[in-house]
Amino acid sequence: MATNVLAPAPISWPIASTGAARVMARCDELARCSASKTGLSRPFLCPAMHETHALVAAWMREAGMTPRVDEIGNIIGHYSARDEAKSEAKSAVWLFGSHLDTVPDAGKYDGMLGVLLAIEMVAALEGEKLPFAVEVVGFSEEEGVRFKTPYLGSRALVGTFEAQWLELRDPNGISLRDALRDFGLHPENWRRARHHSPLLGYFEAHIEQGPVLESLGAPLGIVSAIAGQSRLQLRFAGEAGHAGTLPMNARRDALAAASEWILAVETMGNSVAGLVATVGALQVGPNAPNVVPGEVICSLDVRHASDPIRENAVGELLKAARDLVLRRGGAFEVLARADHPAVAMDETLRAALKSACGAETPAIVSGAGHDAAIMAAICPTAMLFLRTPGGASHCPAETVTTADVALALGAMGRFFSEISNSGATFGSETF
Amino acid sequence: MATNVLAPAPISWPIASTGAARVMARCDELARCSASKTGLSRPFLCPAMHETHALVAAWMREAGMTPRVDEIGNIIGHYSARDEAKSEAKSAVWLFGSHLDTVPDAGKYDGMLGVLLAIEMVAALEGEKLPFAVEVVGFSEEEGVRFKTPYLGSRALVGTFEAQWLELRDPNGISLRDALRDFGLHPENWRRARHHSPLLGYFEAHIEQGPVLESLGAPLGIVSAIAGQSRLQLRFAGEAGHAGTLPMNARRDALAAASEWILAVETMGNSVAGLVATVGALQVGPNAPNVVPGEVICSLDVRHASDPIRENAVGELLKAARDLVLRRGGAFEVLARADHPAVAMDETLRAALKSACGAETPAIVSGAGHDAAIMAAICPTAMLFLRTPGGASHCPAETVTTADVALALGAMGRFFSEISNSGATFGSETF
Repeated sequence: MATNVLAPAPISWPIASTGAARVMARCDELARCSASKTGLSRPFLCPAMHETHALVAAWMREAGMTPRVDEIGNIIGHYSARDEAKSEAKSAVWLFGSHLDTVPDAGKYDGMLGVLLAIEMVAALEGEKLPFAVEVVGFSEEEGVRFKTPYLGSRALVGTFEAQWLELRDPNGISLRDALRDFGLHPENWRRARHHSPLLGYFEAHIEQGPVLESLGAPLGIVSAIAGQSRLQLRFAGEAGHAGTLPMNARRDALAAASEWILAVETMGNSVAGLVATVGALQVGPNAPNVVPGEVICSLDVRHASDPIRENAVGELLKAARDLVLRRGGAFEVLARADHPAVAMDETLRAALKSACGAETPAIVSGAGHDAAIMAAICPTAMLFLRTPGGASHCPAETVTTADVALALGAMGRFFSEISNSGATFGSETF
Repeated sequence: MATNVLAPAPISWPIASTGAARVMARCDELARCSASKTGLSRPFLCPAMHETHALVAAWMREAGMTPRVDEIGNIIGHYSARDEAKSEAKSAVWLFGSHLDTVPDAGKYDGMLGVLLAIEMVAALEGEKLPFAVEVVGFSEEEGVRFKTPYLGSRALVGTFEAQWLELRDPNGISLRDALRDFGLHPENWRRARHHSPLLGYFEAHIEQGPVLESLGAPLGIVSAIAGQSRLQLRFAGEAGHAGTLPMNARRDALAAASEWILAVETMGNSVAGLVATVGALQVGPNAPNVVPGEVICSLDVRHASDPIRENAVGELLKAARDLVLRRGGAFEVLARADHPAVAMDETLRAALKSACGAETPAIVSGAGHDAAIMAAICPTAMLFLRTPGGASHCPAETVTTADVALALGAMGRFFSEISNSGATFGSETF
């Protein structure tokens, strides 16, 4: 399409040694934009997101970008391509970013760090233009806290947002439609949030949110895939009865049945490499100390990088539940189930990232979901993880070291220098 | 004390064949006195208890008794002794009864049946006076629903009510003191509820509330003891974490630990004859499907007729909990513990009841607590259980057959004829 992308002289992204400290300081600044007086809580479209956008927009401008807020509340900084003004066609775009919303009582790095690293990368170009445009996105909504629906920002950008979601309501009864309007957006224009430029790729840096890199002694990890996930809601039915008058041999204790199964879930997780299987939520009915439990409703969350392995594990666990209620008496049913397949990161980008990070950098499966899983549907996508001390995340103890941030910036600089110089190699067909 | 108790002619309590039908009809009538529009819910001192008292008082009068409501809200019908008017001293009293309060969404027989059987017994005397007074009590509070403290009625009557309980508050924040006043009583006079007559004995008929008599094909059972009970609140602490990013081998899942222990509780119950061990209430923290549980708070209820057996079982279960958290990591603690020793029913009365019911009548341990356990502290006490179809209790399905009620009335008539004729044999030293 465009022959001028193969620039004659090598491009480099020269990362300043002060970059990491600036990123850390900006994480602290963003953490002060909160919907709650104590701690950091910044749900989708809350008033504190306006302050957040003001800070991020200023930093984007300082780095040479033109910021805009799209109709779903994503903030996007545009750094034009070398010949952008000359061309009639839209420039192809390399997109970097992460999200700006947080969970309640959050840490300072989940999401924000990836946005600020991306801004720092553009700043490092010091105005030097590339054969493609670069954009930095701060997604408006990834955590799914406010409307119990994650990835609203990236889904709107890739074009998989669904019109009916405008009617979702938050815990205060406010619809998404009204929340957009209250934020100053035009909900009727939500389709305009879809990104219409050719996308060359998407890159997201994020804290690992787990203990794996720390246990390996590795500051960085290259995400090989975002794990597939099965989420189920299950019900064990027994028979409630008086804890004093119902002999043990006449009981159908739903909690004892659920307990036996929870141990089977744990055993399954321990026996299949890379699998995580969790019963995180559980409610007992009637939940009185002197009543034999008649009902248990619980969750199951199973994740693995391989969809067949995950599906097989879920199948075996459901069979185990059916078998044990057959033996114990009572009943078992699946009340709800949602399955999300694993999303592999782009092979070519992974190889380039490995070469930029160092051959010793481990590959890691992301057990958590990320905007990258949404973006991968429309363009080659890569993710870089930063070591998370203690594995603490979604809490005020969440942290990352300045030294690791500096290593990430350096690796990102080498990665994007390589991409910038090889141009079409990494681009999509539209480039 | 009184030599005239040995009456020359045998006394008989001639039970009318229509008695059982009348008792059943009155259970239906009392069930219409409810604090809720749907179903039967009659907590301590609710306005519906006034209607209940009006009905019960009318039936007491019809049977020849003089009813009064004491300062804790117990209704007591007095049927005077043969020579009561002639004597300066208080007559010795044989007390029958049970309780008139109910659990929420209750059945029609738990408690009420025992009160109505007692009234029917007095009616059967058709005015014939005995060497002792007879009183029928409808205790105001046995279930412990409103103030989370059971047996308030019988505790006041025996003199073990504690002054500080007047400050207990119900879920609406109303103190027991104000609840008594609102009911028309004088909380400052609560000590007057203590019964000051010499008590010859206490007899309570009650539904079994379990499936044991039905499984034995027995309409009636003679309670040998009210089981001792240990009630504990326990905490398993682990470490909360992300269900996607925390590998299985790095977890300290508090719910998996609790589940392992709940199975140990079940195994203990199954392996010790007569023991019941129940985890009825359980709460998970933070209780989110995508978070590894960091905390579980749960109950333990252990009951047995033998205190050493119960105490040993609790000790072993606490040891098992400590052992498994040592192995798994995490922590375990006992947040609260209350132990109530078993209460044996009076040997002599049991033998008389067996002779009245028939030699084939089984002895049975009451797994549930009853006012009889409180009364046994001050006088010889006996309990008769009636078969409970399906073992259903504390629910609208709770029932009893008219035929079994007729058998109970017949047995009670023979039992009290024997007592009336042998007089001082069964009496307390004050008689």
